[in-house]
Amino acid sequence: MPVRVVGFDGDDTLWHSETRFHVTQGEFRDLLKRHVPDADVESRLAEMEMQNLSLYGYGVKSFTLSMLETAIEVTGARIPASDLEVILGWGKRMLMEPTELLDGVEETVHSLSGGYDLLVITKGDLFDQESKLARSGLGKLFLGVEILTEKNVETYRGVFQRRAIPPEEFVMVGNSLRSDNVPVVGLGGSAFHIPYQVTWAHEEVREEDLPRQGWRRLGSIRELGAALQRL
Amino acid sequence: MPVRVVGFDGDDTLWHSETRFHVTQGEFRDLLKRHVPDADVESRLAEMEMQNLSLYGYGVKSFTLSMLETAIEVTGARIPASDLEVILGWGKRMLMEPTELLDGVEETVHSLSGGYDLLVITKGDLFDQESKLARSGLGKLFLGVEILTEKNVETYRGVFQRRAIPPEEFVMVGNSLRSDNVPVVGLGGSAFHIPYQVTWAHEEVREEDLPRQGWRRLGSIRELGAALQRL
Repeated sequence: MPVRVVGFDGDDTLWHSETRFHVTQGEFRDLLKRHVPDADVESRLAEMEMQNLSLYGYGVKSFTLSMLETAIEVTGARIPASDLEVILGWGKRMLMEPTELLDGVEETVHSLSGGYDLLVITKGDLFDQESKLARSGLGKLFLGVEILTEKNVETYRGVFQRRAIPPEEFVMVGNSLRSDNVPVVGLGGSAFHIPYQVTWAHEEVREEDLPRQGWRRLGSIRELGAALQRL
Repeated sequence: MPVRVVGFDGDDTLWHSETRFHVTQGEFRDLLKRHVPDADVESRLAEMEMQNLSLYGYGVKSFTLSMLETAIEVTGARIPASDLEVILGWGKRMLMEPTELLDGVEETVHSLSGGYDLLVITKGDLFDQESKLARSGLGKLFLGVEILTEKNVETYRGVFQRRAIPPEEFVMVGNSLRSDNVPVVGLGGSAFHIPYQVTWAHEEVREEDLPRQGWRRLGSIRELGAALQRL
């Protein structure tokens, strides 16, 4: 059956995201080093994010709240409020940054939008993600946006039902094997994995947990058009 | 044309929300009074929320970030980190609280679910709202959930298109004239207004901006079944 619908992950597939978190994490580490030179700030922040995930979900606001909590915790509440204000400012800066598309995205999305129904299917904060898509200038090329609290077999099944998509007619494109490939292939769809330069540890999958078939790795989104035609 | 789909607002229509914000706001005011006895904390917080709305959107995480920023600002950054930690804790407490349904909701939703397609159509944070619905125990009675970044003519039109609902077959039930009544009636649907004990100032509408027809006020959700039959 020919592919009719192509779903794209947003963060680090259509636009840069993780590199920005990395930049802020670096600033955060430098700020806290002044108060607690020996603390393993990065590990503590990563732990805090995981600990708060079931309460906060994904996104910049959650990340900001976890930075604040980590800063207070690792300094034994000795950090001055003015430094916490700096952290609040980083969160706002991240939310205001223009959407920076990955190389090749603009041309690829334009060229595919004539032949396929395109969806953005992404995690994170609804408000933040809709704002990023609007600022990307590509919004009108997509038939719709699905923001999922988690990307798993159940939530992708929900998308297929809501939009009456037979899985065989669906291809997912994304940088996370765990979120974009494994569940879609498990439901009978196909997937293309386009690795990003940085992968959040939380998104990693063991090699033996990968499906044998139904997905392929591409070096760049520029290869997507040809790869879709060969399916 | 008979009504086929009933949309319900979530916060302060199905479950309590604003009263919880009020409780936390009271604690916040008391905490800051110790540092700045003369500050008009409530006004400053309300201004901060409005100022941050285009960046943060609605929800508990946004509210928490605005409390922290207000606390730092009104104390001239003299507030100790341990007090800011207390504020972070209030945000978490709000996110963890069990969903407390309004009086009459459980029976009404159960009884209507046999005869109508029911939707939850709400603003706020996706993660937070899905979690509230899941904890309410009513999730299975609803055909779906629509979380909108804002509730206006455009976003309701999007819901009607996505779900192929003719506006004449749709009724919206909610506590906000501005978000639940005015835009739906403007599109040719109907609405029932069920006031909550507290209205967020941001949601108020001037009497002269209300539509003349197409909506009615109910004293309680218990009156909804009969009111729907009389439409």
